[in-house]
Amino acid sequence: MLRFEVLTLFPRMITAYAAESILGKAQERGLIEVKVTDIRDFAEGRHRVCDDAPYGGGAGMVMKPEPIVAAIEAARARLPGAKVLLMSPRGPTFHQSTAKALARHEGGLVLLCGRYEGVDERVLRYVDEELSIGDFVLTGGEIAALAVMDATSRLVPGVVGNEASTATESFEEGLLEYPQYTRPPVFRGEGVPAVLQSGDHARIARWRRFKALHLTRERRPDLFARLTLSEADEKLLSTPEEDL
Amino acid sequence: MLRFEVLTLFPRMITAYAAESILGKAQERGLIEVKVTDIRDFAEGRHRVCDDAPYGGGAGMVMKPEPIVAAIEAARARLPGAKVLLMSPRGPTFHQSTAKALARHEGGLVLLCGRYEGVDERVLRYVDEELSIGDFVLTGGEIAALAVMDATSRLVPGVVGNEASTATESFEEGLLEYPQYTRPPVFRGEGVPAVLQSGDHARIARWRRFKALHLTRERRPDLFARLTLSEADEKLLSTPEEDL
Repeated sequence: MLRFEVLTLFPRMITAYAAESILGKAQERGLIEVKVTDIRDFAEGRHRVCDDAPYGGGAGMVMKPEPIVAAIEAARARLPGAKVLLMSPRGPTFHQSTAKALARHEGGLVLLCGRYEGVDERVLRYVDEELSIGDFVLTGGEIAALAVMDATSRLVPGVVGNEASTATESFEEGLLEYPQYTRPPVFRGEGVPAVLQSGDHARIARWRRFKALHLTRERRPDLFARLTLSEADEKLLSTPEEDL
Repeated sequence: MLRFEVLTLFPRMITAYAAESILGKAQERGLIEVKVTDIRDFAEGRHRVCDDAPYGGGAGMVMKPEPIVAAIEAARARLPGAKVLLMSPRGPTFHQSTAKALARHEGGLVLLCGRYEGVDERVLRYVDEELSIGDFVLTGGEIAALAVMDATSRLVPGVVGNEASTATESFEEGLLEYPQYTRPPVFRGEGVPAVLQSGDHARIARWRRFKALHLTRERRPDLFARLTLSEADEKLLSTPEEDL
């Protein structure tokens, strides 16, 4: 069981997503747990203020340290072995290999979502790591937390129906995925590659590997450069598609 | 007004997020529009089946082409100038510069979310571009669509309260953002850097630039290597913090 606790000012952004589809089913089946905590519950005063103007001036508001740190401490009390991750553009970029490592973290994961211009720097002392999902700026950490939770959960054994489907997909081996087709056999005049209907499993596997290698070389030369190609891969790459 | 239409099998994943916070307010103020379309409404038959087994075998299910293409065509009829983007790990990686370009696309944006093992390859003919948010695998395109919609919307003039706040933030100039502090002046024994309380705006600006440069060099040497440093930046980098 992989436990997540998301600390946010907008709990419904998380609960609505987590209730549906694969994450919803994984919770029902006891494979993951998703708890969502409203940081505002830890703010003091009648107005439960969670943000204030930045020292030194500048646009926007900064999240105050007290409610966040109190929320982190409450989460750590519930999950003593948890790793606390601040979703932040300053962190290292989340990758499939990060998801794999996090899926094995048995102590649980606390995902802290910043908003506005970010969180008071003094919160960092109470956080284990910062984590970014990419080089773009979001209005808050909630979408990043959902991405991390979703990509990580699906690697927990049993969450995705067939484990083979997570082993052959994009980035697993540093390759983009081959093209997929399903019925109908002809859609608006366009058919399905004959090889996929041949029943020849070795040839289908060759064709899929051929397509994945070519797609990766063409679209993501950065990934392709990092591949360790087998002799069979080298041979596939120098074979014309009609001779596969 | 920037118009989005999201095509998905899980409409509530999108509507719950889009109703809140900055995207919710931007819709109320007529700065953006978010329409969510259930692909299942375009599926035929009593069971409205949207997926089927892949040709050639293998784990998982593939999304059928007919309902998706019908949903795309309905969206194009409403937004004739729209760009149709398939959220897919095979696309180029979304970046702050992509968000900037999309925010200026006046014809609207149709964001198509795949699920399961992906969509039938023949759908690609009806799509303008594929777009990925990073090198990790999600259970579907919904989180990617939210990320694109959120990062793009906040660059529409007026959506984020103060436009200055989008101009100085992470990635805007290829730099990570400097540390932020707000009240209280002392939090659990830790103060706020004296410079931020000095009222000396030129010195505050130097300190923030110094911190942003150092943070970027330390954490993201890849971004740092691409910067064009001014003479003033070079001087800042060789100045000890206490002499700023």
